[in-house]
Amino acid sequence: MRILGVDPGLTRCGLGVIDAAGARQVRLVHVEAATSPAGDPVPARLARLADALEAVLDQHRPDAVALERVFAQANVRTVMGTAQVSGVVMLAAERRGLPVALYTPSEVKAAVTGDGRAAKPQVGYMVARVLGLAEPPRPADAADALAIAITHAWKGGAAPAGSAATTSAQRRWAEAERASRRRG
Amino acid sequence: MRILGVDPGLTRCGLGVIDAAGARQVRLVHVEAATSPAGDPVPARLARLADALEAVLDQHRPDAVALERVFAQANVRTVMGTAQVSGVVMLAAERRGLPVALYTPSEVKAAVTGDGRAAKPQVGYMVARVLGLAEPPRPADAADALAIAITHAWKGGAAPAGSAATTSAQRRWAEAERASRRRG
Repeated sequence: MRILGVDPGLTRCGLGVIDAAGARQVRLVHVEAATSPAGDPVPARLARLADALEAVLDQHRPDAVALERVFAQANVRTVMGTAQVSGVVMLAAERRGLPVALYTPSEVKAAVTGDGRAAKPQVGYMVARVLGLAEPPRPADAADALAIAITHAWKGGAAPAGSAATTSAQRRWAEAERASRRRG
Repeated sequence: MRILGVDPGLTRCGLGVIDAAGARQVRLVHVEAATSPAGDPVPARLARLADALEAVLDQHRPDAVALERVFAQANVRTVMGTAQVSGVVMLAAERRGLPVALYTPSEVKAAVTGDGRAAKPQVGYMVARVLGLAEPPRPADAADALAIAITHAWKGGAAPAGSAATTSAQRRWAEAERASRRRG
């Protein structure tokens, strides 16, 4: 199962693709932080990020998209931009028939480091360890996108955004994971 | 100049198209409130609204899009959905080369009713009056979308979202309005 993890943001949007084969076996396929200039109009910034996202979808053809769930934060302006980017990501996934799963930042930290309040460097360290990389991917948004994808791999049966339904791919994944646990 | 006004929302998204010919001459072209079921996954809801938006863009071919600027409100969940829809709208406009202008709710109320704190029925009443309709468009989201389009018509020289630049269409409009004022 190939998973695209997305850490949405207007200034930097992390895009990380992994392959997950069997329980806990994950491999790095691609990672980048797409950017858009802060001085540009928001519609142009969204189009630039959407172009980068669609290039990754075209080139790496993931089976599922995992996205950070946007919450209210101190900086309202940042939240709005993040929500706008997440809308663009969800629409692109939906139009390609890809299931979208949402994870909160603390779910991702807990899954990857065992601590829902882990600091950013700890997340980067664990992402590198899990994927067998010499060092944490940079910038942090790239590492975060991979952490989100890893979270989805490890929670394979997660329901798509806002729904209790699971796709056939997710069911197959959950079955494979259960079978692997029985063997292991 | 043909203007699409959008009152963004996940449950109901107002889409109102007007023609603005010369200063203060506006005419209704189309109005609807696109909807998406609250129980559906967010990606599917965004796709449904995007389909409705794109149908309006294809059929009525506006020269500009005017969109309500999203602010933090009491209900964070609603704001997130609204921001996601606004991201989808901005991207669709940008990809068609249409300028996007943003107006706050109070700017719209002030432009249409003369009172930045006007109640919804007052906005609907003035939209009907300005467009020569027998009664206010319903639901309120439809009337609000038209109010946003009217605001853009009356502030013709408004800069696109997040930029000081004006398009050639906006410059032509501003010149026409100035010329009209000189004549009138």
